[in-house]
Amino acid sequence: MDRTAGIVIIGDEILSGKFADENAQFLIGALAGLGVALRRVSIIPDDIEDIAGTVRRFSERFDWVFTSGGVGPTHDDMTIPGIAHGFGTRVVLHPALEKVLREYWGPTMPEANLRLAEVPEGAELVPGPHGTTTARWPVVCYRNVYILPGVPVLFRQKFLDIQERFRSTPMASARLYVNADEGVFADQLTAVALAHPTVKIGSYPRFAETAFRVLLTLESRDDGQLAAAVAGLEQALAAWLVRVDKPAP
Amino acid sequence: MDRTAGIVIIGDEILSGKFADENAQFLIGALAGLGVALRRVSIIPDDIEDIAGTVRRFSERFDWVFTSGGVGPTHDDMTIPGIAHGFGTRVVLHPALEKVLREYWGPTMPEANLRLAEVPEGAELVPGPHGTTTARWPVVCYRNVYILPGVPVLFRQKFLDIQERFRSTPMASARLYVNADEGVFADQLTAVALAHPTVKIGSYPRFAETAFRVLLTLESRDDGQLAAAVAGLEQALAAWLVRVDKPAP
Repeated sequence: MDRTAGIVIIGDEILSGKFADENAQFLIGALAGLGVALRRVSIIPDDIEDIAGTVRRFSERFDWVFTSGGVGPTHDDMTIPGIAHGFGTRVVLHPALEKVLREYWGPTMPEANLRLAEVPEGAELVPGPHGTTTARWPVVCYRNVYILPGVPVLFRQKFLDIQERFRSTPMASARLYVNADEGVFADQLTAVALAHPTVKIGSYPRFAETAFRVLLTLESRDDGQLAAAVAGLEQALAAWLVRVDKPAP
Repeated sequence: MDRTAGIVIIGDEILSGKFADENAQFLIGALAGLGVALRRVSIIPDDIEDIAGTVRRFSERFDWVFTSGGVGPTHDDMTIPGIAHGFGTRVVLHPALEKVLREYWGPTMPEANLRLAEVPEGAELVPGPHGTTTARWPVVCYRNVYILPGVPVLFRQKFLDIQERFRSTPMASARLYVNADEGVFADQLTAVALAHPTVKIGSYPRFAETAFRVLLTLESRDDGQLAAAVAGLEQALAAWLVRVDKPAP
């Protein structure tokens, strides 16, 4: 069974183009490397109702949800109250996080920074391994929702510190490079796809490359089915194949 | 009134990290330049039910919806049937599009390419200005949903050819660069934000720059309110301001 995930990027600044998204981009690659099946990415505004509804739905549909942004001390940081609202719970100060904050800033800490210790009631803290920053300053997790900061360097660091808990079995894959337009071989491709329903086959025209016109990708949790689908395509598309990358038998 | 938009990127290949998203990235910037308020971006799989539900909801919530991908001739191209399903209509062959295809490929056109002329019944064709590629090969639009191809060079070209129909009034904006941590001035910032509810104020910590620690952005459709909010912040944050970019009075 695939372990599934969804990503919710929270931030007016991404939707308005003030900053380019870096966090979804990073996490898409990281989850692929961990063998996790990412099912949806949504970029949404700093709006409490939108955060509430979106995160709740993601939490019900996917094994893991990762949020980015909206967790600072200013008026536009809505993620914690949004998630609490979505699950019908309260926002509370987490004593262990408050302790981290007070140790970090010392006696001159501005009171506003206490917002950084706010969590939806019932949230857990997930520390990274000994020696990591996250060992001391853990990730806040509510049910299956991991709440990460929007600043890209912190987002990456916190995710990498806890990533091993998400490692799953990667799917076996193959790639075929075809020097013909999709329409020329679409019927043959469909026949092979229908004959091997447990193999996911994608067909991607590429206009920038010169040695091929379409990349076919195949993925499966069944090595035998994958090999059979590749063999089927090698035969059906022999006239146009320029390269095949497949697992060794 | 803001004109609003949503973007739906359809493609397993983006969620699995095989290809990086270029189209949302491009369109976020283009819509900002046109003064359109982008409210949501979702990246979803090649799944007919997911496409149906997502596009339908976007269509009801936003003035304009742009989809990317899933419009080729192969088995994994689900966008047209997905959108038709979402609105409870049928997929039909559009005679004008069929004519374009037959002229382009000539008598040797593979029959599979006829899928490129399929549209949800009732769709309109939106041509670009005279002389553009899109004048001949128009964009398919169903209700308020503009259906664009996933190949980035085609996506950009088709959008740019029809972009003038989306041009709206840009909001007035200002930026303040603050050399202090957010917690230090969060209370003053909140007071100014509450006093000027028609001004949207964002607060973004930046860790890479050296001359400031937080970027504040202000946006409004009311020039007077924008100027008043900037003046309020210039006074409240005077001790830490390193730069102010604002409209000339």
